[in-house]
Amino acid sequence: MTPDPHPWAYDLSLLYGEVWTRLTRGVHDRHAPARHPTLATVTSEGRPQARTVVMRAADKRAGTLDVYTDLGSAKVKNMRAAPFAALHVWDRSAHLQLRLEADVTILIGRDVATIWEGVPPTSRLSYGVTPAPGQPISRALDYTKVSDAESFAVLRLEISSVDALHLGPNHRRARFDRESDWIGTWLVP
Amino acid sequence: MTPDPHPWAYDLSLLYGEVWTRLTRGVHDRHAPARHPTLATVTSEGRPQARTVVMRAADKRAGTLDVYTDLGSAKVKNMRAAPFAALHVWDRSAHLQLRLEADVTILIGRDVATIWEGVPPTSRLSYGVTPAPGQPISRALDYTKVSDAESFAVLRLEISSVDALHLGPNHRRARFDRESDWIGTWLVP
Repeated sequence: MTPDPHPWAYDLSLLYGEVWTRLTRGVHDRHAPARHPTLATVTSEGRPQARTVVMRAADKRAGTLDVYTDLGSAKVKNMRAAPFAALHVWDRSAHLQLRLEADVTILIGRDVATIWEGVPPTSRLSYGVTPAPGQPISRALDYTKVSDAESFAVLRLEISSVDALHLGPNHRRARFDRESDWIGTWLVP
Repeated sequence: MTPDPHPWAYDLSLLYGEVWTRLTRGVHDRHAPARHPTLATVTSEGRPQARTVVMRAADKRAGTLDVYTDLGSAKVKNMRAAPFAALHVWDRSAHLQLRLEADVTILIGRDVATIWEGVPPTSRLSYGVTPAPGQPISRALDYTKVSDAESFAVLRLEISSVDALHLGPNHRRARFDRESDWIGTWLVP
């Protein structure tokens, strides 16, 4: 028998560590699966929405993740009505699906001035499009990208639970909750 | 200048056709990005959830997609409370993000008997795990997979809108609605 390439999947503590290793890799490695999670929100009508976002910060100790967005985007509108998010990552090489639940705080203006200063000028063009994102336009390129600090928002996701599913010869699934200090319990996959 | 590899992204009608080509490929090709979309739902507490699912059927004319699940899964519980879903696909080779909104019908029993007959015996083991999916267990493998037709459910997603974002030298985004007969309109990305 060849050794299992993912021995961390057999132990709750190691598994939880691996989750944050993979999430953190998304911040620093453009090619890591956690670089581009899918963020789900709920509209004011109670309907789900999902879109790709870019992982910008991961703080294991605080249990938080950061995503940047245009303040005029639909997801900000969603989160103002329902300040919750789910984050989904499929890490193919780890055979690991991550499902995170989070409470969201929308940070703007002075609270994100330092972060804004660290955003490269070309990337700043992603914040401040006119008309606002999602508005109908007559032709596909009838929009202008401008750099606008007032349109820059940081979504701080305070993770409340982590559901980790490892697909091996036998599937293993665990859930870690903030309120249980991330100790973790196995779940039926 | 090299020709754009995705000329379909410049025309609403061609773009909509490409969306369904890609979705349909997910049914037949295990390696297609649309094989494993992310499905978002809303809990009875109004919180978003997201997980990977497998694309099982795509019907462009009807505007429906099928996903199979265990009747005891949390997503079924979600959809009984809020019969809505969002489906997300990132198709890397097409530089295309698909975001679909759908109304969901949960089909079981006699309504899915013919589909169940077509599920290979080994795959049938995915429907009928004991205890139910998501239940806490003492050890990671304290569950038994059994094949149970009574636990087999088909989630029929009746698509209400398609949001397609193409990432090119200039980003293009369009929205197609069932109630507008899928004609489509450009949106600010």
